[in-house]
Amino acid sequence: MAVNLIIPSQADVHAVKGVQIGIASAGIRKAGNKDITVFQFAPDTAIAGVFTTNRFRAAPVQICETHLASETDVQALIINTGNANAGTGEPGLVDARLTCTELAKILQLRPSQILPFSTGVILEPLPMDKLLGALPAAVSDLQDNNWFNAAHSIMTTDTQPKIHSTQITLDGKTVTMTGISKGAGMIRPNMATMLGFLATDAGIAPELLKEMTRDIANKSFNRITIDGDMSTNDSFIIAATGQSGVYVDSVASPHYAELFQTLRNAAIDLAQKIVRDGEGATKFITITVEQAKTSEEARKIAYAIAHSPLVKTAFFASDPNLGRILAAIGYAGDDDLDVSHLRLWLGDVLVALNGGRNPDYLESEGKRVMQESEILVRVALDRGDCTETVYTCDFSHEYVTINADYRS
Amino acid sequence: MAVNLIIPSQADVHAVKGVQIGIASAGIRKAGNKDITVFQFAPDTAIAGVFTTNRFRAAPVQICETHLASETDVQALIINTGNANAGTGEPGLVDARLTCTELAKILQLRPSQILPFSTGVILEPLPMDKLLGALPAAVSDLQDNNWFNAAHSIMTTDTQPKIHSTQITLDGKTVTMTGISKGAGMIRPNMATMLGFLATDAGIAPELLKEMTRDIANKSFNRITIDGDMSTNDSFIIAATGQSGVYVDSVASPHYAELFQTLRNAAIDLAQKIVRDGEGATKFITITVEQAKTSEEARKIAYAIAHSPLVKTAFFASDPNLGRILAAIGYAGDDDLDVSHLRLWLGDVLVALNGGRNPDYLESEGKRVMQESEILVRVALDRGDCTETVYTCDFSHEYVTINADYRS
Repeated sequence: MAVNLIIPSQADVHAVKGVQIGIASAGIRKAGNKDITVFQFAPDTAIAGVFTTNRFRAAPVQICETHLASETDVQALIINTGNANAGTGEPGLVDARLTCTELAKILQLRPSQILPFSTGVILEPLPMDKLLGALPAAVSDLQDNNWFNAAHSIMTTDTQPKIHSTQITLDGKTVTMTGISKGAGMIRPNMATMLGFLATDAGIAPELLKEMTRDIANKSFNRITIDGDMSTNDSFIIAATGQSGVYVDSVASPHYAELFQTLRNAAIDLAQKIVRDGEGATKFITITVEQAKTSEEARKIAYAIAHSPLVKTAFFASDPNLGRILAAIGYAGDDDLDVSHLRLWLGDVLVALNGGRNPDYLESEGKRVMQESEILVRVALDRGDCTETVYTCDFSHEYVTINADYRS
Repeated sequence: MAVNLIIPSQADVHAVKGVQIGIASAGIRKAGNKDITVFQFAPDTAIAGVFTTNRFRAAPVQICETHLASETDVQALIINTGNANAGTGEPGLVDARLTCTELAKILQLRPSQILPFSTGVILEPLPMDKLLGALPAAVSDLQDNNWFNAAHSIMTTDTQPKIHSTQITLDGKTVTMTGISKGAGMIRPNMATMLGFLATDAGIAPELLKEMTRDIANKSFNRITIDGDMSTNDSFIIAATGQSGVYVDSVASPHYAELFQTLRNAAIDLAQKIVRDGEGATKFITITVEQAKTSEEARKIAYAIAHSPLVKTAFFASDPNLGRILAAIGYAGDDDLDVSHLRLWLGDVLVALNGGRNPDYLESEGKRVMQESEILVRVALDRGDCTETVYTCDFSHEYVTINADYRS
């Protein structure tokens, strides 16, 4: 059961000019599942990506990095669910390369123009016969507005599809941003989350798009955590086809700011949707740490709170056992933190100050906030002016059930 | 339900000459609970302790550190359960000091000769009337062999008392080591665990005892983790009364090695007992990382595995979903780790090598090991000769139940 996750109606999901999507069923994990998705982009589309920093990063992630580094004209993505092609060593790389080669033949492209993505179980070989067998069907299915189906076909333990679609007018022209993402466990990205794909028909200069993708990931997919487990496959891609007639080539371009902000908001929404549909989530929690000396300090403390199983189970129980938050702040690794200057709010309620409980704090007030489905935890450190925000969810029985049963 | 936690019979728990223990009921959290424990040591007992590094360390921890730094003749401990006296600011320090002052009056000691310990809920004021009211009863109860009752009276969410008792013969004299500990959540000590008290009637020079206590903590209480949550109250104390007639004043003393090893084994047993009785634990897991460049590197990887909710739920499910272990190794923060040189064993089964699955690995073999209640995870990095071992447990429905209901 996802937490306030809004799925737009099909009519509100706008096609992005220059993007076609095809879906097929390879039966990688379960027969009949739609588990293959192909994106095809018009020539001259700019594409940038950020990827997991896990040392066991999956074969497809390694191939994506190689292709993005050497190729200026990427034109397709191939995504499979059911198997992550991670922890598969050299044979896994061979499989990921072969996937690109075979799709390239069908689309009449070079293999390096294809980016491969996989998500699912780790440490098992990709069933290549099934995967390759489904490529022709996926290509035959390529069509202009297939985002809704694609959002479904990239799901694994997700309970809901995650789609964001917006249109803005720039220079009298309609510019579209549409994207999809998936979670829902092993989510503590340090590059981007499991999978996020965002496309716009604005044109963006390739070098600028790279920068924008990094910056946007750092405010969206890189600030969510469900269980603290950074995946081997995290990937986030932005594609800019340029087919709207709007073009941005530097931060000084007149439409840069609005375009950046709209793309960033789309990415934040897609990232938050992953948390809202986090495995077993019943609450959506925003943790803001402000007045930190450095961004790193703020992040450390926000993640310590977000990863504490004790804090997460207290949220699940709607129990304002807020000492657990103080304990997490205390062990976050900020060695010279003076807790006597710190303040902690739960929603609008000031819980702690001067190293202890706020004398005016009423447990009934804490309880009231804890019972909501959207909760803001705010910590002010009184040490500087850096702020960071992290999004997470609670820790429920359902999380254990899902992860104890995932492969069965 | 604890995992293979052995409780010695009362007859096997040996008194330690020079140590008396008294128990009483203050009803701090629940009326009638035995929740106050007083230790009294003979004059000239050497006492050393290690404590949590949490920045929100509790008032009693701060007082312990002050007293141990200024006082050479500590003679008593006072422990309460039901309230941690943490996150209580300046009033919490006043309460902890007052506790020492009042017990000192009854025992005719200086307040600085008392060390206070608290465990329980954070962020709530200590109910001083109840606590002080129970001190006379605890002192009246002081007796030679009260370890068994003390092991019970320091319990919070523990389901089983944790006691270790050994005797060895040195120089024809019987030397006794007896200790108790408690958990069972918020356990990822970085000094020592929640509470551990170990006493011996060997005599140990105070400076040497300090060193030994630090070293022993680093191989026992500092190597266990249940949920990664470092407590505000972790404390581990060794007291050496000297009443056995055996005395050790340097590492060159003839009996030093055997004494150190026996004390270390006692501490490892007490620490492991905390994990065996970890909240919701159904399995006891030993994680050894070897061939690391540094101890820190080995520890980082061991803790990443031990803290991964995905790994812990897989253990709970007896599901050899071992890619989750590889993913945890990959995000542990070892930035130049070459995974192609790494090997992973589950028990005696070689699971991964050359960056992927061992071609000879059979899932049925992995399953066999996962179904055991004691599991060894061994990682060889091929980078150096440092080894570290961490002890943890799995993550079950029961953990969520316990922590969602703890205060109710």
